[in-house]
Amino acid sequence: MEKNFHECIKVCLECLEACNRCYDNCLSEEDVNMMKECIRLDRECAEICAYAAGAMQRNSPFASQICKLCAGICEACGNECQKHDHEHCKACAEACFKCAEVCRQMAS
Amino acid sequence: MEKNFHECIKVCLECLEACNRCYDNCLSEEDVNMMKECIRLDRECAEICAYAAGAMQRNSPFASQICKLCAGICEACGNECQKHDHEHCKACAEACFKCAEVCRQMAS
Amino acid sequence: MEKNFHECIKVCLECLEACNRCYDNCLSEEDVNMMKECIRLDRECAEICAYAAGAMQRNSPFASQICKLCAGICEACGNECQKHDHEHCKACAEACFKCAEVCRQMAS
Amino acid sequence: MEKNFHECIKVCLECLEACNRCYDNCLSEEDVNMMKECIRLDRECAEICAYAAGAMQRNSPFASQICKLCAGICEACGNECQKHDHEHCKACAEACFKCAEVCRQMAS
Repeated sequence: MEKNFHECIKVCLECLEACNRCYDNCLSEEDVNMMKECIRLDRECAEICAYAAGAMQRNSPFASQICKLCAGICEACGNECQKHDHEHCKACAEACFKCAEVCRQMAS
Repeated sequence: MEKNFHECIKVCLECLEACNRCYDNCLSEEDVNMMKECIRLDRECAEICAYAAGAMQRNSPFASQICKLCAGICEACGNECQKHDHEHCKACAEACFKCAEVCRQMAS
Repeated sequence: MEKNFHECIKVCLECLEACNRCYDNCLSEEDVNMMKECIRLDRECAEICAYAAGAMQRNSPFASQICKLCAGICEACGNECQKHDHEHCKACAEACFKCAEVCRQMAS
Repeated sequence: MEKNFHECIKVCLECLEACNRCYDNCLSEEDVNMMKECIRLDRECAEICAYAAGAMQRNSPFASQICKLCAGICEACGNECQKHDHEHCKACAEACFKCAEVCRQMAS
């Protein structure tokens, strides 16, 4: 595994967890109607973060391209999450923007 | 790949598709509050169906145990989906019960 | 689910199966040393095909970008598989090139 | 997310990484023939660990059953890895046995 993958894997796994927790909490909110876009993007973002982390861990030749895609999806998810005041959404937005930045560096 | 995996893989992939479509449609319903348990179980069921199909395709030594777990999750998802009148829920319930049955046979 | 996703999902799922079967068979060959790049790319390709099929099924807003990435990985896997004479490699190469083509159209 | 999931998620993600690194390194060994069972089980174990971690993160109602399955697969992978003297195999065996233990507690 390349040295510079280390930080990016860590950040992807943190974002994965933030997205899955936000997803679970959104589905438990009283008014789920407000959260439907957040639920959808949380799942999309969790999927790509898990995929990107695994790809870097197994030294995939496509890791850079996967991280580039991951950066874009994280940014979209962060933009949605930051519209909401729930703690889980704010924590998720922060994790998403951090992951977007680190993945973008990895991809460049 | 073992011969008897063939039908089970096909049914798991059909259930995967039914669950993902139901999930997408549930999130697009006017009243998402009613559908939140369905959304949650659709994702759970899609995850295990994708995992089970892949495990059988690559001839995993754990395929039987995975199919046993898959059968239980499919049944739970089918039970939730059949509470709703939406076409996508009814189609999903049918796919889930079919998959539960075929996976249970595979596991036994 | 968008109409034009239908064919692409089908082709991705066929490629997923071809890759997983080729992976399993490569690991069962007498001389695995010859097949190591094939094993590696079969797994990479199976991962992206499963991911792309799921994304289209749940109507992900990122489906086009995912299909674009999928096309590139399928092509790389097909190029490796076609170097080998095993039936499973030839079948996999064919599925990969088909999937690359359909995903590329989807992404454009 | 339930409190007691926290440690188990962490251990599953560590095992995921150990399995993916061992997989990558096994495929880069001079004699891959010796490592083919290790490669196969590393992938199986990585798949279930990623699945189990995600299921706990999103508070899946099936988390216990998934962890029970995970424990068995981790143990099988650990048993294979400990047959080999490579550093990556020894590290993977350790991560697998740790994960098996924590998942078994979670499932009980």
